[in-house]
Amino acid sequence: MNVTVLRLGHRKERDKRITTHCALVARAFGAKAIILSGEMDDSVVESVKGVVKNWGGKFSITYKKDWKKTLEKFKGFKIHCTMYGEKPEKKISLARKKAEVMVVIGAEKVPSDVYKMVDANIAVGSQPHSEVAALAIILLKLLGEKGLWAERAGAKIRIFPSEKRKNIVKRGKKNI
Amino acid sequence: MNVTVLRLGHRKERDKRITTHCALVARAFGAKAIILSGEMDDSVVESVKGVVKNWGGKFSITYKKDWKKTLEKFKGFKIHCTMYGEKPEKKISLARKKAEVMVVIGAEKVPSDVYKMVDANIAVGSQPHSEVAALAIILLKLLGEKGLWAERAGAKIRIFPSEKRKNIVKRGKKNI
Repeated sequence: MNVTVLRLGHRKERDKRITTHCALVARAFGAKAIILSGEMDDSVVESVKGVVKNWGGKFSITYKKDWKKTLEKFKGFKIHCTMYGEKPEKKISLARKKAEVMVVIGAEKVPSDVYKMVDANIAVGSQPHSEVAALAIILLKLLGEKGLWAERAGAKIRIFPSEKRKNIVKRGKKNI
Repeated sequence: MNVTVLRLGHRKERDKRITTHCALVARAFGAKAIILSGEMDDSVVESVKGVVKNWGGKFSITYKKDWKKTLEKFKGFKIHCTMYGEKPEKKISLARKKAEVMVVIGAEKVPSDVYKMVDANIAVGSQPHSEVAALAIILLKLLGEKGLWAERAGAKIRIFPSEKRKNIVKRGKKNI
């Protein structure tokens, strides 16, 4: 399954780190891409590209001004992740049969059109928390944990899980 | 099981929203408390207290300057959540037998002492992503999804899961 994340309503000052975290979560769980909308913000794009360059694998981060067109054009199963949505089980099991899935996450206010334009409005609990956490849980349900531990082609940095110390290898040279 | 989250190294300007998200994730999954360390930041404490007031339940947020003492004094199973740690399975199944568990999450740089002061250094994947997401996954493994959907005593706002619309009730009055 290919997963693309669409991040709506990015605000350059306020959301810089939250959006970056969303992008890195998308990459870590094995989504293939994130598309940012809202205010254009090169610094987020560049910082995530830097992570991809060092940590390997394929992951695309792009900016699209017209989120509506992006959402409309997407041919696949569209999940909007919202605290107002239904419980995940039913729609996640539908989504898992699809080849292409888009997960839409908003910043503070999401236009009401979004609710009607998607195949599923899914909540990760009915309490306020974090789109970063909600995205992680949805991706876990869609993709499992495999991506989290997968070796990335072309990685300059790799970490080997360790009980008590940092076991990190940089460009084939062991550092600590 | 009672879970307390310890957030290390909070930086007032840079981490305001990330730390707030960590606190809300802790609450949403059913942890009983978060302790903040690093720079004192009343605005995070107040904003989380506001959420508890409106959304109900018991959740404590406090600030402790001396994280080392806090960590030392805690009588229970201590998990440090770090990308350098081991895979979760083994230590999570140990932790699940305990009555009191502390989950430690850092900001950018975590003092190396932390690795030795805990019972487990656990990674959520060996890729860089987000302490908000990592905390959510660890709490999911410890507590399951029950807390996410639990009704909170004294809540002034409640959301009922819904497929297509916002079904939110405020102080007993249905609003939309």
